[in-house]
Amino acid sequence: MKKKVNIAIAGFGNIGSYFYKTLEKNNYHISVKTGRIPFVRYISAKNLNKKRLIKIPKSKWIKNPLDLPLRKEIDVIVELIGGSEGIAKKLVFSALRNKKHVITANKALIAKHGDQLATLAEQNKVNLEYEASVGGGMPIIRSIKEGLIANKINKVYGILNGTTNFILSSMQNSNKNFYDVLNDAKKLGFAESNPISDLNGNDSAAKIRILSSIAFNITISKDNILTEGIQNINLTDILYTKKFGYKIKLLSISEIKKNKLIERVHPCLIKSNSILSNIDGVLNAVVIEGSPVGKTILQGEGAGPGPTTSAIISDLCSVLRGNIKYPFGISSKSRKKIVKFDIKKHISSSYLRIDVKDIPGVLSSITNIFAKNKISIKNLLQNPDKKNKKATIIIITHKSLEKNYINLFSNLTKNKFVLKKPTFIRIEEV
Amino acid sequence: MKKKVNIAIAGFGNIGSYFYKTLEKNNYHISVKTGRIPFVRYISAKNLNKKRLIKIPKSKWIKNPLDLPLRKEIDVIVELIGGSEGIAKKLVFSALRNKKHVITANKALIAKHGDQLATLAEQNKVNLEYEASVGGGMPIIRSIKEGLIANKINKVYGILNGTTNFILSSMQNSNKNFYDVLNDAKKLGFAESNPISDLNGNDSAAKIRILSSIAFNITISKDNILTEGIQNINLTDILYTKKFGYKIKLLSISEIKKNKLIERVHPCLIKSNSILSNIDGVLNAVVIEGSPVGKTILQGEGAGPGPTTSAIISDLCSVLRGNIKYPFGISSKSRKKIVKFDIKKHISSSYLRIDVKDIPGVLSSITNIFAKNKISIKNLLQNPDKKNKKATIIIITHKSLEKNYINLFSNLTKNKFVLKKPTFIRIEEV
Repeated sequence: MKKKVNIAIAGFGNIGSYFYKTLEKNNYHISVKTGRIPFVRYISAKNLNKKRLIKIPKSKWIKNPLDLPLRKEIDVIVELIGGSEGIAKKLVFSALRNKKHVITANKALIAKHGDQLATLAEQNKVNLEYEASVGGGMPIIRSIKEGLIANKINKVYGILNGTTNFILSSMQNSNKNFYDVLNDAKKLGFAESNPISDLNGNDSAAKIRILSSIAFNITISKDNILTEGIQNINLTDILYTKKFGYKIKLLSISEIKKNKLIERVHPCLIKSNSILSNIDGVLNAVVIEGSPVGKTILQGEGAGPGPTTSAIISDLCSVLRGNIKYPFGISSKSRKKIVKFDIKKHISSSYLRIDVKDIPGVLSSITNIFAKNKISIKNLLQNPDKKNKKATIIIITHKSLEKNYINLFSNLTKNKFVLKKPTFIRIEEV
Repeated sequence: MKKKVNIAIAGFGNIGSYFYKTLEKNNYHISVKTGRIPFVRYISAKNLNKKRLIKIPKSKWIKNPLDLPLRKEIDVIVELIGGSEGIAKKLVFSALRNKKHVITANKALIAKHGDQLATLAEQNKVNLEYEASVGGGMPIIRSIKEGLIANKINKVYGILNGTTNFILSSMQNSNKNFYDVLNDAKKLGFAESNPISDLNGNDSAAKIRILSSIAFNITISKDNILTEGIQNINLTDILYTKKFGYKIKLLSISEIKKNKLIERVHPCLIKSNSILSNIDGVLNAVVIEGSPVGKTILQGEGAGPGPTTSAIISDLCSVLRGNIKYPFGISSKSRKKIVKFDIKKHISSSYLRIDVKDIPGVLSSITNIFAKNKISIKNLLQNPDKKNKKATIIIITHKSLEKNYINLFSNLTKNKFVLKKPTFIRIEEV
């Protein structure tokens, strides 16, 4: 590789411009560490005429990002457009085909097309780096691929979404309700104006699928994993679970069970003295359980220009050092497909909040549904609201099969005493 | 580099044999990931005739470890002898001179001779890897050098010694005294039969000096940093600090203050809801504060065969990949010497326990000493022990200069009412 390395940035919003500024500032530092001088040759942005705080020479602007892979002088393309389809996808495929190293923060793209992209990168002998796609503030991908390379990992899990973690921990700490806290999050820049993919768990699901493919040396799973968001959690749940010594966290969990893969993203009740329960605000944390290392935990901010830039530059330095590595730690042909564990056979205890009419016979009707579905009740709490002729029943169950919960839920929802869809949260021993 | 890479292990105790077994078991896995086949060609041990659980072919045994660097067929030497001088030192110097890659878990050696060794490794174009020297269960060295390479780090701190953390957290959780808990630790294998370098803070000091040299791109500091152990902490202190909402932890702290370096290892009172206060047992944790990343935290087991082997194999894979890297992240000639911050100008608030005679006038005499030394008292608690005509005075101070504490301490020790050396613990806002 030549001494000066030419970089093109595609997508110049918050992250792109922060990355550009940081790179300019740390140019010397990076060249001392890697022996190469990174130079941003081109920048492509949706709106070239937008007023910007930093001045970019006209010669750097390129209108169409898809032109970048065709420029001979370009060595590295940093894709910050986002989305699993459209321009981002076209750009990254074309870049790799044209033997450009690619750095991307695009979790949706990697989760959907990562296998294909990795093969393409290997064929063309270039790097495909995506540290920023999961937990920018913690070097989790590099740690699994390199620092923990010796380990047979059997479980990787944690908090992978800063927006939802901010919402849940704020509800917990301030006793405010979901929508008030969501508004706070938007004002503080911790939630996007349309935060749906954060709230419904899809963002976390893409991230855990990426992590499990690296941790277990497997191809990326299909996107049909168990995914539940936090939209149905309200302050009542936060307060009741606190009474029982739990906190509610949106966890992403991937593990090998009986040689099969089980991946899930859903709110969990976790003991309030557990490691992950103290990860509050926009922090992310990942626990890796492996042999011989035991448990390793990484924490850091999950998103934002600073942490994301830190991750992108670590990717860039890896490229600058000139060390072509397999994008997923091992060659594409060595990565195995793995059978999925039947989620219906998953076992957990759980928390349910059931809002019912306050009339005689309700409790026996409800508990009867539990018995019929072979779900044993550990704790029950009934809280009447006489004025509105309603009552809230809180139940903590013993362990049971997912299959039973599905039936239970369907029976409950149909029951004439039940006023609305119950809230169901699994209890996770982490 | 050739396909098969010949390894020599020097030192074959707990760690050495565990590493050997794990490497044999993961051979295929490692060759798939790195493209090279690691092969343990020689093993050197103090006692060749010792009964061992694993059978080693006679052809692998070498009596004198210093012969290893002279063997042409050897590519990598794994030094697990320990100690900053003697055979370990001779072996590592000779290995690098003979162009062998070196992997070591020896923090004492790296802390003392790391600068010289790094220069030698660079001259001879071989790797010097030492991930296992600090917190084996967390890839902290690799993370600072690579994952966080983009960052200007201004502070790195944490819990770097598992033995002392086990002792402190056990005292905290079981209300047992220091010596009982130390005995428990020995029985559980969490403390060596002679744990002095753990208890007095020297082990932690070596580790933090290694981390700061990587984090700040400086040469390793002299070993005269502020180092205090946990030998003077007793159950009384644990119980009183708990009342004030603190936990006691042995922290290692390194930071850049006014362009100067301040490194210290000492017990600290930290708020019981802070991140590090929940790191219990033999766990280690390191917090890295940098820009742009913010705060990144790594946790994992600090020692033991499993975590150490995980780190050694990650080093080995780095060697196998054939990527020669600067041992300290940048070239030896680029590493800067840095001026030390005058520790006497360090400011902190503190906790003191002073055992005094229980006679009139004591309290005014003691508080007078504080006033004379310009140390303002925030909280004072007097606990008389009428039977023994003694009293315990617990004081939490406002912030003051280290210099003032030194004078205070000297005045207190000389005071006629004071029965023994007071206990002094700094309060750390982490």
